[in-house]
Amino acid sequence: MRIVVTNCNTTQEMTAEIVRGARAAAAPGTLVDGLTPGWGPESAEGWLDSYLSAAAVIDTLRTYDGPAYDAVVMAGFGEHGREGVRELVDVPVVDITEAAAHLACLLGRRYGVVTTLERTCGQIEDSLELAGVARNCAAVVSTGLGVLELTDPARTEAAFLNAAEHARAAGAEVLVLGCAGMTGLQQVVAEKLGMPVVDGVGAAVKLAESLVALGLSTSRAGSYAKPIPKGRAWGRGG
Amino acid sequence: MRIVVTNCNTTQEMTAEIVRGARAAAAPGTLVDGLTPGWGPESAEGWLDSYLSAAAVIDTLRTYDGPAYDAVVMAGFGEHGREGVRELVDVPVVDITEAAAHLACLLGRRYGVVTTLERTCGQIEDSLELAGVARNCAAVVSTGLGVLELTDPARTEAAFLNAAEHARAAGAEVLVLGCAGMTGLQQVVAEKLGMPVVDGVGAAVKLAESLVALGLSTSRAGSYAKPIPKGRAWGRGG
Amino acid sequence: MRIVVTNCNTTQEMTAEIVRGARAAAAPGTLVDGLTPGWGPESAEGWLDSYLSAAAVIDTLRTYDGPAYDAVVMAGFGEHGREGVRELVDVPVVDITEAAAHLACLLGRRYGVVTTLERTCGQIEDSLELAGVARNCAAVVSTGLGVLELTDPARTEAAFLNAAEHARAAGAEVLVLGCAGMTGLQQVVAEKLGMPVVDGVGAAVKLAESLVALGLSTSRAGSYAKPIPKGRAWGRGG
Amino acid sequence: MRIVVTNCNTTQEMTAEIVRGARAAAAPGTLVDGLTPGWGPESAEGWLDSYLSAAAVIDTLRTYDGPAYDAVVMAGFGEHGREGVRELVDVPVVDITEAAAHLACLLGRRYGVVTTLERTCGQIEDSLELAGVARNCAAVVSTGLGVLELTDPARTEAAFLNAAEHARAAGAEVLVLGCAGMTGLQQVVAEKLGMPVVDGVGAAVKLAESLVALGLSTSRAGSYAKPIPKGRAWGRGG
Amino acid sequence: MRIVVTNCNTTQEMTAEIVRGARAAAAPGTLVDGLTPGWGPESAEGWLDSYLSAAAVIDTLRTYDGPAYDAVVMAGFGEHGREGVRELVDVPVVDITEAAAHLACLLGRRYGVVTTLERTCGQIEDSLELAGVARNCAAVVSTGLGVLELTDPARTEAAFLNAAEHARAAGAEVLVLGCAGMTGLQQVVAEKLGMPVVDGVGAAVKLAESLVALGLSTSRAGSYAKPIPKGRAWGRGG
Amino acid sequence: MRIVVTNCNTTQEMTAEIVRGARAAAAPGTLVDGLTPGWGPESAEGWLDSYLSAAAVIDTLRTYDGPAYDAVVMAGFGEHGREGVRELVDVPVVDITEAAAHLACLLGRRYGVVTTLERTCGQIEDSLELAGVARNCAAVVSTGLGVLELTDPARTEAAFLNAAEHARAAGAEVLVLGCAGMTGLQQVVAEKLGMPVVDGVGAAVKLAESLVALGLSTSRAGSYAKPIPKGRAWGRGG
Repeated sequence: MRIVVTNCNTTQEMTAEIVRGARAAAAPGTLVDGLTPGWGPESAEGWLDSYLSAAAVIDTLRTYDGPAYDAVVMAGFGEHGREGVRELVDVPVVDITEAAAHLACLLGRRYGVVTTLERTCGQIEDSLELAGVARNCAAVVSTGLGVLELTDPARTEAAFLNAAEHARAAGAEVLVLGCAGMTGLQQVVAEKLGMPVVDGVGAAVKLAESLVALGLSTSRAGSYAKPIPKGRAWGRGG
Repeated sequence: MRIVVTNCNTTQEMTAEIVRGARAAAAPGTLVDGLTPGWGPESAEGWLDSYLSAAAVIDTLRTYDGPAYDAVVMAGFGEHGREGVRELVDVPVVDITEAAAHLACLLGRRYGVVTTLERTCGQIEDSLELAGVARNCAAVVSTGLGVLELTDPARTEAAFLNAAEHARAAGAEVLVLGCAGMTGLQQVVAEKLGMPVVDGVGAAVKLAESLVALGLSTSRAGSYAKPIPKGRAWGRGG
Repeated sequence: MRIVVTNCNTTQEMTAEIVRGARAAAAPGTLVDGLTPGWGPESAEGWLDSYLSAAAVIDTLRTYDGPAYDAVVMAGFGEHGREGVRELVDVPVVDITEAAAHLACLLGRRYGVVTTLERTCGQIEDSLELAGVARNCAAVVSTGLGVLELTDPARTEAAFLNAAEHARAAGAEVLVLGCAGMTGLQQVVAEKLGMPVVDGVGAAVKLAESLVALGLSTSRAGSYAKPIPKGRAWGRGG
Repeated sequence: MRIVVTNCNTTQEMTAEIVRGARAAAAPGTLVDGLTPGWGPESAEGWLDSYLSAAAVIDTLRTYDGPAYDAVVMAGFGEHGREGVRELVDVPVVDITEAAAHLACLLGRRYGVVTTLERTCGQIEDSLELAGVARNCAAVVSTGLGVLELTDPARTEAAFLNAAEHARAAGAEVLVLGCAGMTGLQQVVAEKLGMPVVDGVGAAVKLAESLVALGLSTSRAGSYAKPIPKGRAWGRGG
Repeated sequence: MRIVVTNCNTTQEMTAEIVRGARAAAAPGTLVDGLTPGWGPESAEGWLDSYLSAAAVIDTLRTYDGPAYDAVVMAGFGEHGREGVRELVDVPVVDITEAAAHLACLLGRRYGVVTTLERTCGQIEDSLELAGVARNCAAVVSTGLGVLELTDPARTEAAFLNAAEHARAAGAEVLVLGCAGMTGLQQVVAEKLGMPVVDGVGAAVKLAESLVALGLSTSRAGSYAKPIPKGRAWGRGG
Repeated sequence: MRIVVTNCNTTQEMTAEIVRGARAAAAPGTLVDGLTPGWGPESAEGWLDSYLSAAAVIDTLRTYDGPAYDAVVMAGFGEHGREGVRELVDVPVVDITEAAAHLACLLGRRYGVVTTLERTCGQIEDSLELAGVARNCAAVVSTGLGVLELTDPARTEAAFLNAAEHARAAGAEVLVLGCAGMTGLQQVVAEKLGMPVVDGVGAAVKLAESLVALGLSTSRAGSYAKPIPKGRAWGRGG
């Protein structure tokens, strides 16, 4: 089985890190390829970045000409685009935001999300709401760190643990890493906090593998019908 | 006062029609300029189109170099992008989806939306939900017509009246034209149905004028802070 | 265009102040007349006052014999009566509670209301809920001041700023003046808080003008049908 | 124990009928007095009537000088006023709308309400929502009969049974008589429908007796604090 | 009238205490019998205990061969089983969790629950939600005391008063005793807190009496149809 | 990896069928053991059966002395017990109801459930609600067949297809088999309906495998803490 993992931004180092996280979660027979969008923001923080990212990721998948794949994992926590990718491709599509929430719901009565900047909290709440998994979300809290500031592990961990306490006070019994760039952090913080911590990248890989194994793919009956053939220009150069 | 009205697609005739509708609603002192995105879909029907449209509209506003304007009206019913534009510009931004719903709430206890294809209903429901005005929406129903099929007025009117009965049966006391391309239809169907019908383009123009007159603009305190300076490539040509 | 602005209480000074606020917001061609109920409470604080006010305002409009008007603005934040006035008159009716919320939704992802006494918070929450605009309300907080204590501007401003911090902590990115008697305060507190502050009186005037300009009025198809002719006695003297 | 049952309208025959229903439900030691408002509508159908009724009922209780009572039952299905009466009096207050819903929740997973005119359905939904008991309400359906048309029992029964089928189809397992004027109908329709039918008047009497017996009364800590002393004029004669 | 009050656990002293509370609330003509399950947990704290308790209580009622009774009161705050008992018996069934909430809704705009261990809060929230009365619940807070630690009245009272302040801060205007073992505490804490405090045992007795007096019982039309005859083994011994 | 799949009833043939379905979904290295409760109902239809089943399944796991296992799959669609099992065991627990819903959410914007008897629909709705995945459920519809009537495949299929049309009309784009006894039916009905159909047994196996692979298990921080040591008697024989 081959899974394409799309980064939501153009930073190759981030793609590499996400792929590492995805491979760590993948089953033995699963191949994981990272896909960095050919355009878009160098990190996605806020709605403007997120819509730019959505279009760029869709375009990158649309013009992809690598080996055939069995599923798409979209690695942009709280970022837009999943419904568009579902229209585009004929294989299952799993976004790390919803994936983390789905697994978190199985592990405790309420879960919390710890993310980067304050400004992304609202987007994550909206994403969870529309994915149908917001009911048992107790809180989305920020660490105050930008996506590209996550490179210092000690600082990230300390900020995460601090924010986690706010989520716990709000009722969270399980936590979710609220940024693809946090992948890998889950074990150390889980141990220190004494509660399970779900990484969306790993969660999405397992859900994608599950759907493929069960022979399930996106419904074409309704919302996610194939795009209607028409003129479309993808960027200024078009 | 100058309002820029952005079309969500690249079809110039549609922009012209939207501008006609906007000018019909505008106050004497209000100038209305139409803006057709430099790229994107030729009509927006579904999520893939909508995300492409969102990025293209944002990019078109980002690179706009015409006369200064006081507000933006986004004319794409149910389409994405409004939060990103709010981050980008320093003037009020009103999306026709939310605008129509805001006014409809003032006219009856429950409203309904009549739109184009079945596949767009879900997107509209999501857009209303996140805008905070879904509670009193009784139904979003489709006419079965594509955006570019709205050119035959008699057919559009008949399809609208038929769909309107479903909305009424679901409790709607007010209707909303669920596509910018329906602008102009409101009076004739309102008369035939015996209930108010709100056109989102006109509604958005009045709300934009209202915000400008009151000296109000988007909050920078939280979700819609200015975009963080960083590398961003807008489309393949970059 | 002529708009009648109804005060929810019998205090003429309050009517005068509301009219000042309404006129400040009105377009050049809009005439604003204040209407003080012929009976009712001298200030509305709590449900008993609010129901008394609702009946008195309806009766005052019912027996009004001044110049014809094009819209009604109801200036009682959180007070009852709007649906009854919609049944009564043939022109658009806008309540300042809902009006402020409608505009606030366009300015930020979540808004907050800062009002007078603690006891009125619940009524305001109910009013927003039924108007269909409560979803994006982060908090309704009180200043602890009674309606008739708002005459000291410095004290009011200080209490407002203090309460505003609670609303901000709850997620509000935009604020609403939660009492008609606060009209005029919006600019100074907006500047000090660094976020937009919406005055319901001004908001309602602009929404009323908008509806009139668009030729829209209350739906008669359903909830707000004309009152059925029958015997009714309006007060003890009847 | 003495319970005052307030009619929401000025029709004495209706008061008499309500009192009959209340007495049929009352425990042996409970005295039931009917109170017809001194002013207000002759029947309450719609919001205008309802707000007029609310003020009139409050005023009638405010100026009541009969024997002391232990509880108030408000007999106006879907009508406004209960919160105001809670502020006014020092004894428990039970509205028949909420009372019927409270008991109905104990008898089945979902209940339905069968009421008079279509225009009152929305008011009833609002009343149940604010009372906190709307979640398990499957439907509020109308018989199409006005309050004063309920005098023909055969016609009322037939209309009720017909409307009841719509409620059942929507999932109702229990029904509620949605008008004080239907009191007495519950047994015959319950038998014909094979499901429990709750009369709000009887339900409210039992709930009022229950609260009195338990020594419970309205909380003064918050929303329903005593009205603040101030000038208030109750109707034109004032 | 005879009411059977089922304890949710096997502790006879608890049954005795519950029966004392029930008798204190019962009308003169009402006989109250306590029923201690023949098996199950010695106290119910958490879901495992609660499901065990549910099965044990149902089995105990199924095999009951005492005098005929008119209603069942289930005395386990937040515990499972009420829907199963409704299927089993032909008389009204009232659970103390929902009963307390129903009466609390009549006494204030928002109520709070003060219960034993933190781990039971979630169960109580779920129970209120499914009973249809969670909307006006402001908070469920714990005292930190286990069910069997409630034997020291001074300690229980102090812990209750402390937790009550958290509920009040969250908006509660009325409180509910969140454990059958707290029965009897309501008056002293109500006085100290200055707000009504509802005991679920007393509330359920009054609601059961009310339903019986009105001739109402569980609907068989839908969810709570009689159990289908089939093989069932009740415990290992079977 | 070894997964124990618990049947919710005592019918061995049903266990065998569930195990077949589970093994068909399991990864090569996953061993699946079926566990038939030592007591309980021979089929679970309604709340009484469901609570009996919950206690029996918990007891059966509590006294299980077979080989160590890595996860529990609970195969009773809409049946109670999952939270209790989460308290009991130290490995992940996945209920087929929530599992099917989690995967269905990834495949379409709205899903529907097709189940057995009408009386079980409410229980399933409640189960989805508390699991946090009800938001995107468009409908739960019944085939009218009892659990033990599912043995005739042609009849089951026909009834399923008929009920599926009702779910589709309500907006479902994906379907869920609403009974463990339907396992195996998914492919044929998916083809005939042209939409994905999720089997809860297979879904739960994949989710259980995913959690185990990611090293995740139930949170002990809050709701699902280990049961408190105390006296408990499991059934009459105790």
